[in-house]
Order: sequence, then structure tokens, then C-alpha cells
Amino acid sequence: MRMSELSAESGVPIATIKYYLREGLLHQGEQTSATRAAYDGTHLRRLRLIRALLEVGRLPVSSIKKVVEAVEDESLPVHEMLGTAHYALSPAVEREPTAEWDEALAEVDSLLAGFGWEVEPEAPARHELAHTLVRMRRLGHTPDLAPYAAAAGRLVEEVEIGKVPFDGPRDAAVEALVLGTVLYGRAFDALRRLAQESASARRLSGR
Amino acid sequence: MRMSELSAESGVPIATIKYYLREGLLHQGEQTSATRAAYDGTHLRRLRLIRALLEVGRLPVSSIKKVVEAVEDESLPVHEMLGTAHYALSPAVEREPTAEWDEALAEVDSLLAGFGWEVEPEAPARHELAHTLVRMRRLGHTPDLAPYAAAAGRLVEEVEIGKVPFDGPRDAAVEALVLGTVLYGRAFDALRRLAQESASARRLSGR
Repeated sequence: MRMSELSAESGVPIATIKYYLREGLLHQGEQTSATRAAYDGTHLRRLRLIRALLEVGRLPVSSIKKVVEAVEDESLPVHEMLGTAHYALSPAVEREPTAEWDEALAEVDSLLAGFGWEVEPEAPARHELAHTLVRMRRLGHTPDLAPYAAAAGRLVEEVEIGKVPFDGPRDAAVEALVLGTVLYGRAFDALRRLAQESASARRLSGR
Repeated sequence: MRMSELSAESGVPIATIKYYLREGLLHQGEQTSATRAAYDGTHLRRLRLIRALLEVGRLPVSSIKKVVEAVEDESLPVHEMLGTAHYALSPAVEREPTAEWDEALAEVDSLLAGFGWEVEPEAPARHELAHTLVRMRRLGHTPDLAPYAAAAGRLVEEVEIGKVPFDGPRDAAVEALVLGTVLYGRAFDALRRLAQESASARRLSGR
């Protein structure tokens, strides 16, 4: 299809498509004449991925570029490609060089080990969790995260991991990962609040 | 105790305590002389609550005031007091007057009804969930939220609802709700990402 058709089909304005081509986020089409190129399903898929990274992941163009590079580097195993996107989506947490941080990280690691989870030491979520623990402790709470880890693990194993199309096109796998991580995370949080309201209403109604 | 002791015990500077007294967030101490007042455990508890609303809930002082009013109004049932804090913690989502919003809200309501959850129509999380559904649909996805609702409901029923000290001091119940809603929500999200990384590593290692 021509660029005008790619734009109509994807809903992305022509000027934006040209910008993505210049930035290297979108691969060039097949040149059919001096002034014309043909685009196909792979371009549509890439535009969907860029939109997901931009609108859902709220990533800056520089991070989107890194994710796209991982998608295009076919020598990179799927797990590492997905990891690049996954880490880019996580908020960066600065580790503080204090004893309470060391303790929190040790607690996170022992929790992960207890569940048999294999996670890279530099995983942003590992530091995010340690940071949350530090904040809880400073407020005088000693949280028990095991039931939360159990619930998260069950959700991932029983529902989520089956939904990532590992064997399809690399763009589609990353897009599914972005939507799954960010939007389903938000949906879960809203559902948890609704369940809390309902449970509280039931517990306390009539008092 | 004196104000200086209240400050030392709570870690809140005297100037801040005076500000809370002026704003009506903290109740006055018992006047023991023309220039002196005595403070007690209720003041300590209130300072903990204010800190939780401020640092964890990131609420503006005007919202904290509303929550404190609900805590102080003993005629307000506990469920409604907790509801005031719960709603104040939720991001406000503007409903758009479009057909896709109506459809999303209808889908949310049918999900809630399916789980037998009792939720007020104006619950912010109801609109937040509808908004997330609208975004998923616009990205071409038709999500199935039932497994997420089941997981959230189980977590709340089996773990969370038992942790809110409904029968203790009103301040302590609201403080537990704030920490539970916000910090455990963040912890769950980090744990879900860690579980995703581990599950993905296991699925794809060796490929």
C-alpha cells in the first residue's frame, strides 16, 4: 500500500509517519519509483507498537528507539527483546546507600527465592519493591508480602503468560507485553479498589 | 506530653505541628496554662494519619481536611468514613459523553454484578476501569477482565479485608486503609512485573 493508505489504515497522520521513518522507528518501504514506496503489514504492525509504547507506556522517543532496535535485532533472543521493553516500562528507582535499603533488598531477594522466581539483579521492579518496603517501614509497618507475591504469581502463571504471542511477529509480542503490563496493571488496581469497597460495605453494613 | 515531646515522638517539626493546629487538621491539646497545652496518644495517631495521607496518598491539604473531618465526625458510620478516604485516594477520571464510554461502563457494571460486588455508581475506580477499557478497545484489544476481577476479589477477601482495624480508633483504620490501598497496590504491581519476568525467562530459556 501507499503511504496515504498506510496512514488511513493505521490512523497515524502522514507527517508523523514521515517523522518515524526519519527517526528510524519505522523501517523504509519498498521503493517502487523515484518518489514512491510500498508499505505492508509489517509497517502497520510497527505503527501499532509505536502507538502502544507512546500512548500506553508513555515512553520518550529515545526509549522507543531502543525497544525498536531490540525488535529489529533478530539475533536477540525473544526473552531479551521482551526484557528490554519490560525494563523500559518500569519507573527507575534510585537505590540509596543506606542500611535500611540493604535490608529491604535482602528481604525482596529472600521473597523471590522463596517463590523460586528467576529475576535479574538489575530488574527495576526489584528496586521498586525494595523502595516500597523502605517506605512502609519508615511509617512503622512491617508488611507481609508473601500473600501478594502468591496472588501475583498465580495471575501471571494462570492468565497472563499464556497471552503473550511468543511465536508470532516480534512487534506483536512486544505490543502485547506493553498493553499487558501497563493497562492490565491499571485495570487490576481499579478492580482491587472496587473489591475493597464492596468487601468493606459488606463487612460494615448494618453496624 | 508537651508540644516539644509530641514533635520528638512523631518526628514532625514543631512549626509543622503548629500549622496543622491552625488548619484544623490536628485537634487542640488540653490547655494546662495560659501558654501551654498537653498532647496525648490521639495527637500522635493523628500525625501518623496526616503523614500517611500526605506522603503516601500525596493528597493536597484540602483533601486531607475532608478526610480528617470524616474521621472526627463520630456520627458518620465507619464504612462512610473509610469511603471518604478511599475515594480521595483515587485518580479522578472525567467521563466522556460518547457511546464507547457508555459501553465500557455497561461492561464494568456487568462484571461487578457477575461477582456480586456492591459498589456506589460514583466510585472513582468504576470510571477509572471504564477509561482503561476504552483505551484497550481503541488499541484494537477486547480484554477479558474476569480473571483479573477474580484475582483481585480473592486477594481482598482472603488477605486485605482482615487487616483493616475496623474496631480500633478511627484514625488508625483510615491510616491502615491508605497504606493498604496505595503502598500494597504498588508492591503488587512490582511483584507482578517480577513474576512476569520470571515466567517469561522460564518459558523462553533454551529457545
